[in-house]
Amino acid sequence: MIDYAALAQAEVERIRGEGRYREFADIRRIQGKFPRAQHFGPQGEREITVWCSNDYLGMGQHPDVLSAMHGAVDQAGAGSGGTRNISGTTHYHVELEQELASLHGKNAALLFTSGYVANLATLATLASLLQDCLILSDADNHASMIEGIRHGRSDKVVWRHNDLADLERHLQSAGLQRPKIIAFESVYSMDGDIAPIGDICALARKYNALTYLDEVHAVGLYGPGGGGIAERDGVADQVDIIEGTLAKGFGLMGGYIAADAALVDAIRCSASGFIFTTSLAPVIVAGALASVRHLRSSQKERDAHQAAAGALRRILLGRGLPVMINDSHIVPVMVGDPVLCKSLTDRLLEEFTIYVQPINYPTVAKGSERIRLTPSPLHTEADMHVLADAIDCLWDSLGLHRQAA
Amino acid sequence: MIDYAALAQAEVERIRGEGRYREFADIRRIQGKFPRAQHFGPQGEREITVWCSNDYLGMGQHPDVLSAMHGAVDQAGAGSGGTRNISGTTHYHVELEQELASLHGKNAALLFTSGYVANLATLATLASLLQDCLILSDADNHASMIEGIRHGRSDKVVWRHNDLADLERHLQSAGLQRPKIIAFESVYSMDGDIAPIGDICALARKYNALTYLDEVHAVGLYGPGGGGIAERDGVADQVDIIEGTLAKGFGLMGGYIAADAALVDAIRCSASGFIFTTSLAPVIVAGALASVRHLRSSQKERDAHQAAAGALRRILLGRGLPVMINDSHIVPVMVGDPVLCKSLTDRLLEEFTIYVQPINYPTVAKGSERIRLTPSPLHTEADMHVLADAIDCLWDSLGLHRQAA
Repeated sequence: MIDYAALAQAEVERIRGEGRYREFADIRRIQGKFPRAQHFGPQGEREITVWCSNDYLGMGQHPDVLSAMHGAVDQAGAGSGGTRNISGTTHYHVELEQELASLHGKNAALLFTSGYVANLATLATLASLLQDCLILSDADNHASMIEGIRHGRSDKVVWRHNDLADLERHLQSAGLQRPKIIAFESVYSMDGDIAPIGDICALARKYNALTYLDEVHAVGLYGPGGGGIAERDGVADQVDIIEGTLAKGFGLMGGYIAADAALVDAIRCSASGFIFTTSLAPVIVAGALASVRHLRSSQKERDAHQAAAGALRRILLGRGLPVMINDSHIVPVMVGDPVLCKSLTDRLLEEFTIYVQPINYPTVAKGSERIRLTPSPLHTEADMHVLADAIDCLWDSLGLHRQAA
Repeated sequence: MIDYAALAQAEVERIRGEGRYREFADIRRIQGKFPRAQHFGPQGEREITVWCSNDYLGMGQHPDVLSAMHGAVDQAGAGSGGTRNISGTTHYHVELEQELASLHGKNAALLFTSGYVANLATLATLASLLQDCLILSDADNHASMIEGIRHGRSDKVVWRHNDLADLERHLQSAGLQRPKIIAFESVYSMDGDIAPIGDICALARKYNALTYLDEVHAVGLYGPGGGGIAERDGVADQVDIIEGTLAKGFGLMGGYIAADAALVDAIRCSASGFIFTTSLAPVIVAGALASVRHLRSSQKERDAHQAAAGALRRILLGRGLPVMINDSHIVPVMVGDPVLCKSLTDRLLEEFTIYVQPINYPTVAKGSERIRLTPSPLHTEADMHVLADAIDCLWDSLGLHRQAA
């Protein structure tokens, strides 16, 4: 007989053997004291400092956001109670979709339960909407885009990461008449590098392609209203579909697309991952609405965020650590070995109450294992020196190299 | 040149032409007054009665749930700030997974951002985990299961809905040695009928298959602890993987699986839809935890729920309306025509401030269009008579038939 549990266990052991087994840190962030959190670990409960959150601006504890959440719980209760079509379109959803459309200068937007589902559902649906479509996917695209493209089952070509010449070569060989979607990101999460959005859009126009831009690591953080890199670069109107998240810069959860109303309506009417799922809870949507509205009018958080990223980079480089330099807010430090990377972060937590997650394969390529630091406006320079001291100390202890990455 | 927006518009028009275009009702449920909601419509703001929510027990306004939500916002802030692996495993998640495992008598559970993603990610991952696997899928399975099976790309056979003989025929022809997954639901949402779980599990044992049971329309609602139909029937230990939702009986959002620890660990380590997405917000998880805990010890809501379903059925049958009889809490009334179905519900809302969504193709088969009523413990007998009067009146006005379904 087949022992299904044993087959599962063997798979887990295979993953463990490759050094890919993940143990989750059990934490609870402390509202009012971000970036501190309670850690529930083998040593009991301890207060730690989180250096790997994607709540980039600390909006997760912004008073406007929390007040909107309390208000929505009092006003509308817990969940929405249904799919968008069956009693789950709340007035909060309608207002947030209008706000997000306006944020990106589009005439419509559509909420999904996550950015993952937004990418998966939209790309899969676009592929089936556009007959004989070819998707041109940046080599470093996120797993959710890859899954959406795979699920859509259209033809796909992968172009070299941020390489305009390679993209143009593929566009040219596809020809003008064939429907084409260029799928890419603005800020790439693991390296922190930024796509030349305007140039990509110019190629799209030249070769008659639709552009699909994932701005999840940029919305709230860049542009005068927090509209992302496309807004910062003044090219948002050239991007056909902008996909974003409410879970990072905006501090909540959920995802969305913003685009031309007809495109959004076609996705709304056809995407299984949008249609057949309970909508986001009012408390989430109300919090996100407050967050988006705040960040449209306040530049303070964005300035402080960039200042924090700059300060942390300088401090770590001052210690001779191999910081991977980029133009974004993400501060990766190269380790280059999965076991040492895990040792480093285990010891940071155990010995220094500093929480950083090791970034190993398959999230990044083998040999490029790293720690990925996400300084926020709520991390002080004092926090940064404590972090740098700890890494400095462990770097020697683990025999890691200091040359620049 | 290709006009992508025009292609999208043509697709929308095609959907509209098939009578499948959906307009979402813009509502906000009124906490403390469920099943009432504010409706934001062409006639302005009006108070309506919701008869189509899947917050079956009204847990969306339970004081324990709301208090836990307020507490989590105060304690931990808005979002989790990360994926489960990167700072997004909160202590709430850990506690809720333990609670759900215990609820279903399993030794592990795993949270997903939705029931849709739970089905999609788990079934797709199982298919790739079990080489040469055959999935035996009930004909009436939910879209999310179908997508998961499709995405997993293993072989699939569809067996006739709840038909044990047909299932056995397929199991037999697959043979004992081939890995097989029987995927089915307990309560089928649109007809409200219930699967013979024990008999299906007996076939699974006989033919060496894994069982995957979707209990989203049953958890919280059936069984002495709210563990679903499998618990009610005393067969939960025979089901390998139970999938549930936090968005219906429990009143929040999110999904989960409960199973043997090795199976859960394999899914946890491999499922893209689990790994690469921000985890549920603490406020949601804390609310769900309070809801699950309450419903494990309180039978009151379940009893009142079944009583309400029985009362509504009697009242509607008393008017000679074609109620589709089943053994669950779902009360469908057959209309059998998409245009009349939409007219009926449009007029219920406009003329009687009663909100019921029409259930048309592709959610149900063409010709079986219906309204689907979901009485809760919070709907009074007076509410039911108001509803019956309104349907009664419109039934004649629209020239619909009265024979039993």
